[in-house]
Amino acid sequence: MPKKVDHQERRELIAAALMRVVADQGLEAVSLRQVAAEAGVTGGMVQHYFPNKDAMMDFAMAAASSRYEQRIGAATAELGEAPSPVQSAETILGCLLPADEQGRRDARVALAFMSYSAVRKSASESLAADNTGMQGVIADLLRSAQASGMAPEDRDPEAVGVALMALTDGLSIHIISAGLSHQTAAQILRSEVRRAFGEA
Amino acid sequence: MPKKVDHQERRELIAAALMRVVADQGLEAVSLRQVAAEAGVTGGMVQHYFPNKDAMMDFAMAAASSRYEQRIGAATAELGEAPSPVQSAETILGCLLPADEQGRRDARVALAFMSYSAVRKSASESLAADNTGMQGVIADLLRSAQASGMAPEDRDPEAVGVALMALTDGLSIHIISAGLSHQTAAQILRSEVRRAFGEA
Repeated sequence: MPKKVDHQERRELIAAALMRVVADQGLEAVSLRQVAAEAGVTGGMVQHYFPNKDAMMDFAMAAASSRYEQRIGAATAELGEAPSPVQSAETILGCLLPADEQGRRDARVALAFMSYSAVRKSASESLAADNTGMQGVIADLLRSAQASGMAPEDRDPEAVGVALMALTDGLSIHIISAGLSHQTAAQILRSEVRRAFGEA
Repeated sequence: MPKKVDHQERRELIAAALMRVVADQGLEAVSLRQVAAEAGVTGGMVQHYFPNKDAMMDFAMAAASSRYEQRIGAATAELGEAPSPVQSAETILGCLLPADEQGRRDARVALAFMSYSAVRKSASESLAADNTGMQGVIADLLRSAQASGMAPEDRDPEAVGVALMALTDGLSIHIISAGLSHQTAAQILRSEVRRAFGEA
């Protein structure tokens, strides 16, 4: 009986190869041939799973998102049973800043996707959905802090969600593309989150 | 007598073609052949002026920076003789947000360069210098507001410079890659600048 092919596993193998190529050489180095070579499979196999480059990028983007989600899940679990909203917001946003080589690789991939999304509508919609989700989480945390009297009422939670996500993305990008240190970025992010939640 | 070749003009023609390719199709579409076709010159001519892709990208990046500088110069000139530091900061940072189709094209090019810089050290150094310059301008404005008692003393001007530039870059990127409206981004930027200068 022939071995059953695990299609999801193969897709992930190819997406991981794509992400390595992007993290090491940038988006413009991505070609079917390059990804196939990196994954150690044939170009035909890459094409079998991903009919075109867009499909491959979309899948890799979803994989990268789920990696960030796992990191956030692990970090928030460590906060214990009843973290304050500002602690949760700090922890979640802090997970998005590249802290080590793996984080920098992930951030290079995320940046490449943002750049890719800027010229492709379908990718842009998926990125918008991801962003809106994260902004909503931060807005909800601020709302809950406001409801329990822990944060000032004069901040619009939606606007704060957009601002803190933009700040985090901007800091991440300056870390990987303009030599900002993770330490400085993390301090600034922490103090801006505390300020937004009325704790500065 | 043969017509004297204006080398700077040719370089700019080629850099403009490169930027059109990047703005329309993304960084990964850039090839010597594609840029030559877009500029209406031969591949040999592109190679004569730019020995490799890095050199072409560096030149185009400098051209894009000088475009932003011109835009900032024009907008600050309109502020009149003695704008307040917070007005200057608002105006300068506001110029970096893409407001129209040309602004979106420039922002797509800037984003592509950030992504490119994340995997190439030389580009990263040039981007770092640009960023440090802008952060310094904002820091100086805050310092001058603090010196004249217009802004609270408790904010670190350097940190505010880094934070506001990161916020601006993050908002710009969300406009072009994730469907954030310019209007929302501009409102958020304005209110964050005012807050940093103690006017909110």
